[in-house]
Parts: sequence; structure tokens; C-alpha cells
Amino acid sequence: MKYGVIGAGAIGGYYGAKLARSGQEVHFLLRSDYQYVKEHGLQIDSCDGSFHWDTPYIYNKVEHMPPCDVVLVCLKSINNQKLEQMLPPLLKSNTLVVLIQNGIGVEADVQTMFPDVQLAAGLAFICSAKRPPGRIDHQCYGQINLGNYSCKDDSLFQQVLADFNAAGVRARQVEYEEARWKKAVWNMPFNGMTVALHTQTDLLLKNPATRQLIREQMMEVITTAQHLGVKNIDASFADKMIEMTDEMVPYSPSMRLDYDFHRRMEIYYLYSRPLQIAREAGHPMPKLEMLEAELRFLEEHNN
Amino acid sequence: MKYGVIGAGAIGGYYGAKLARSGQEVHFLLRSDYQYVKEHGLQIDSCDGSFHWDTPYIYNKVEHMPPCDVVLVCLKSINNQKLEQMLPPLLKSNTLVVLIQNGIGVEADVQTMFPDVQLAAGLAFICSAKRPPGRIDHQCYGQINLGNYSCKDDSLFQQVLADFNAAGVRARQVEYEEARWKKAVWNMPFNGMTVALHTQTDLLLKNPATRQLIREQMMEVITTAQHLGVKNIDASFADKMIEMTDEMVPYSPSMRLDYDFHRRMEIYYLYSRPLQIAREAGHPMPKLEMLEAELRFLEEHNN
Repeated sequence: MKYGVIGAGAIGGYYGAKLARSGQEVHFLLRSDYQYVKEHGLQIDSCDGSFHWDTPYIYNKVEHMPPCDVVLVCLKSINNQKLEQMLPPLLKSNTLVVLIQNGIGVEADVQTMFPDVQLAAGLAFICSAKRPPGRIDHQCYGQINLGNYSCKDDSLFQQVLADFNAAGVRARQVEYEEARWKKAVWNMPFNGMTVALHTQTDLLLKNPATRQLIREQMMEVITTAQHLGVKNIDASFADKMIEMTDEMVPYSPSMRLDYDFHRRMEIYYLYSRPLQIAREAGHPMPKLEMLEAELRFLEEHNN
Repeated sequence: MKYGVIGAGAIGGYYGAKLARSGQEVHFLLRSDYQYVKEHGLQIDSCDGSFHWDTPYIYNKVEHMPPCDVVLVCLKSINNQKLEQMLPPLLKSNTLVVLIQNGIGVEADVQTMFPDVQLAAGLAFICSAKRPPGRIDHQCYGQINLGNYSCKDDSLFQQVLADFNAAGVRARQVEYEEARWKKAVWNMPFNGMTVALHTQTDLLLKNPATRQLIREQMMEVITTAQHLGVKNIDASFADKMIEMTDEMVPYSPSMRLDYDFHRRMEIYYLYSRPLQIAREAGHPMPKLEMLEAELRFLEEHNN
């Protein structure tokens, strides 16, 4: 099995290195720190055991990469239009492309670009950060859930799950729609609110007013998902997400880091797209709509 | 006619000095710059003509003030519980107390403290700031609208309107509920949003996302007011408020100034109280509820 990793950052670098160390042939596409990693390898500082990974399979151009059986797309979703150029050199007739990305609607849009490609959603539950050059700081968690979007080759899909587990990454199959919406229950409140109030998860939950607001925003996602026919999601899931976050270390989600480093935020797939889906289904999410507007304002002035 | 002014700041100092200069006997209660104003008088820097006002009627204790025919209460509403001690020395059997304050519910609460006192709402449309010591910076506008809450003496009420107009302050009678809710249409979006996004009115209206958000928040107030039976308020009023603000100089509302100077914000009467009224009427205002929660968070961390 050949794996390709597009975007070997905090997430892709971690999962790719774990798979590689367990014996998979993993080909990494890097951008900014390509030269450094080519010479020095990747350093994974991990709560589960740190390690160094040296590999010849480091690229800065997709054209130099081989076709792969599985491609892990770990780009930020704001760059997904680039997949139109980036993916084709990596594709075989049977390649499974796993979109390890945040938000709602990424699979639908990539499928429109590549109608025949097999797609899966990868939902990473991981606290990890890239420290360029060549260093990944894996702080906690690490599980990945895979939802089947359009993969007809179930044995390939199951093989990917098995490869992750063999590499020491807990992986399991989840129902696609349910998984994407459940992830949004955490992502939509916390990513945006930590930016809007320039704070971290713990302080949002400590203040009674924002604790209640976070729960109300979660309930907007949950009731919209229910309205859309998503199964196994109800108010108890909001309580579970809040309890889980109470026990996390004070955390800055990826959008807060993007904002702090003056990078573009993933507003489109994290907010605009699900909000649009909700409105079209006649079940708008007003507090999250307001958050989107605040984020658009903050992005305009974040230079 | 004897006038008393409780809280001779940006608003009370301006209106009080205008009335005094026109010949009314106006008694001013000051706090922080009492000594300075006692010695040097008040300096009004005004777009309508600057002037200096020297008067012996300057106090730092209500107990030294005479009973008045009209009392203008220009405290911040967060201090209204102090009125229980402050008002009695100023009251005669027929005194009219005008609450020149922001928010919804101030008259109801003061009436509960003083069931027999005649109350009116004063709605100031004015851009003005206090520059201690003793200086008031009146930038633009200046009109005051009076809504009758519980004044049975209509000739007294009309006399106050006439006195304001004679003093060069445009004043007219408005319907109480309609006026309070119309003021909230502007106040609720702009006061909080300039704090939440640490910006001014012009930039909120320049960004398409926050311009739309401001209008949606205005519509929450308008539809709630309609639901409560308030007359003469519809979507065209939101457009009018936005057009008016487009033509204003870039402006920091009072709540933004309070936040910047680390003073307590008027969250209760500007947000909590009207939001509670709206919820109890079965017509919640979700985006303004979210704004209230953000303000509570920001206030907790504004030290």
C-alpha cells in the first residue's frame, strides 16, 4: 500500500509519520519546510511517545509523487480549490482520498471536481500543532474516525482503518453525516468564539454567560442536524462535549491559531456552508450566523 | 421653576448648562470634579456654540440641594439603586423626575422605589463626552424626546418641553413605549457590537457581514416591539437608523467608552432587561442574547 499525505502539517505530518513508522510506504508533500525536512526528517514530539522520522519520500511538487492507494488530504479547507491541480498525479483508478479537514461540505465539493474518485471523511480528534521547521507537537488525543462518503471498495476502506490501528492510532468507522455534524457541534462554537473573544476553551466555559451561549450554539447545530435527519444526536451530546472540554487543557482551536498568526480562517466550510445548508432546510442557526459575521469582520481587520 | 440635575456628566452637564444659560435655576450634583467646577464652572465645547457657565448651584451632596420642580436623572443606569437615597431630598409633592438614561425598564424600576413620583423618560439624541475636570465636549446632535410614563400634571410636562426649546435644545413629546423601543433599535446593536469587535460605528457598517448583522439585530428589536404592541415601528425604521449612522462621524457609543475606560457597562438595562421582556413575551432575540453573553464575558475580563 502506498499512502500520500497532502499537507504534512500538525495533522497530516503526525498521522503520516505514525503510519510510516509502522511500516507503510508514506509519501509526504510539504510546502514551507520542505528543504529542512528533506535534510533532517520530521520530529514528532508526542504525548504518546516522541520519535524522529527520516524518509526519502519527501516532495514539494505533486508531479514528483507516485500514484497512491490512499491519499490523506490534510490541507486547510480554504485551499481546496487547489486540489483540482494537486490530486490528479496521485490518483489511480481505485485510490481512496480521505479528507481530514474541518467543516461541512468538503466532500461534496471535492466530489464535484472528481466525480469518480472514492472519498472518505477523516475526523481527527487531536490536539496537535506544527512548529516549523520539521517539528510536530502532538499534545493529546489522536483518534481518527473515518466516514464513508463514496468509497465502493470496502476492503480498501477497512484496510485503512486497520493500518491506522496497527500504527497506534485509534481509528474506527463512523456514519458519515452523523460524524460530520457531531464534529461541528464542538467546532462551530469553540473555533469561532475563541477568536471572537480572543480567549481559550477553559475561560469560555468558566464564565456562566458564555458557557450557556456555547451550549445554545451546540444546540443550534444539534437541532439542525436532527432536522436534516441525522441520527443519534441529541441534547446529551452537547453535555458530553462540554464535559469533555471542561477536562481538556486550556485550548486554542485551529481557527484561533490561524487568526493569531494572521492566516486566513476556515470560515467557509466551518460556518458559511453549514449555515447555508441550515437556512435552506428552513432551520437557521442565528447565534452561529452572528458568529460568522463577527469572524468576517475580524478577518477583514486582521492584518 | 427649579431644576435639579443628578449626574452632571456628558448629558446632564450639557442639558443642565443649556437650561441654566436660558434663565432656569438649575442645581447640579457632581461627583468626581465637584471641587473644580465649584471654583471654575462648566465649560461647554459645543458644535452649536461653546460657552462657559459659572453658577453657585453646584453640590456634591443631595442633602444640600433644594427640592426641585423637575429632576433630570443622568446617572448611568447601573447606579440606579442609589436613587433610593439620592432622590428624596429633591422631591416635592409634584416633582417630575425625567430619567435621561439608556435602556428598557428604568422607569418601571424607579416607579417601584417611588410609587407616587411622576416619571418621564428622556431620550437624548446627542454625541457628547465628559472631559474632566469641568469640560463637556458636545460633538453633534442634541435633541431630547420626552415620553410620559406617569406624569399626571400635563402642564408641568409641557412646561419642561417649552423650557428645553427655549434653551435651544430641540425637545418634543413622544409616546413612551414607542420611544424607548425605537431608541433600543439603535442602542442594542451599536453599543454592544462596538465593544464586542472593538470598533466604531462606521467600520461595522462598512463590512458587509456586520452591516447585515446590525440590520438583523435591529429587526430583532423591531419585531419584538411589534409583538409587544408598540406602534409605528417597522423595517423602514431599521433602514432609517442605518442611513443615519452612515452619515454620522465614526462613533464610539457610551458602552464602548465605558469598556475602554474599564468602567462597568450598562448591560442590565441595555440588554438583560429587554431580552428578558422579549423571552417572557415568547419572542426571543437570539443575536442580541449572544451579544449580551459576549459582553458579560468581556466585562469579566476587563480589568
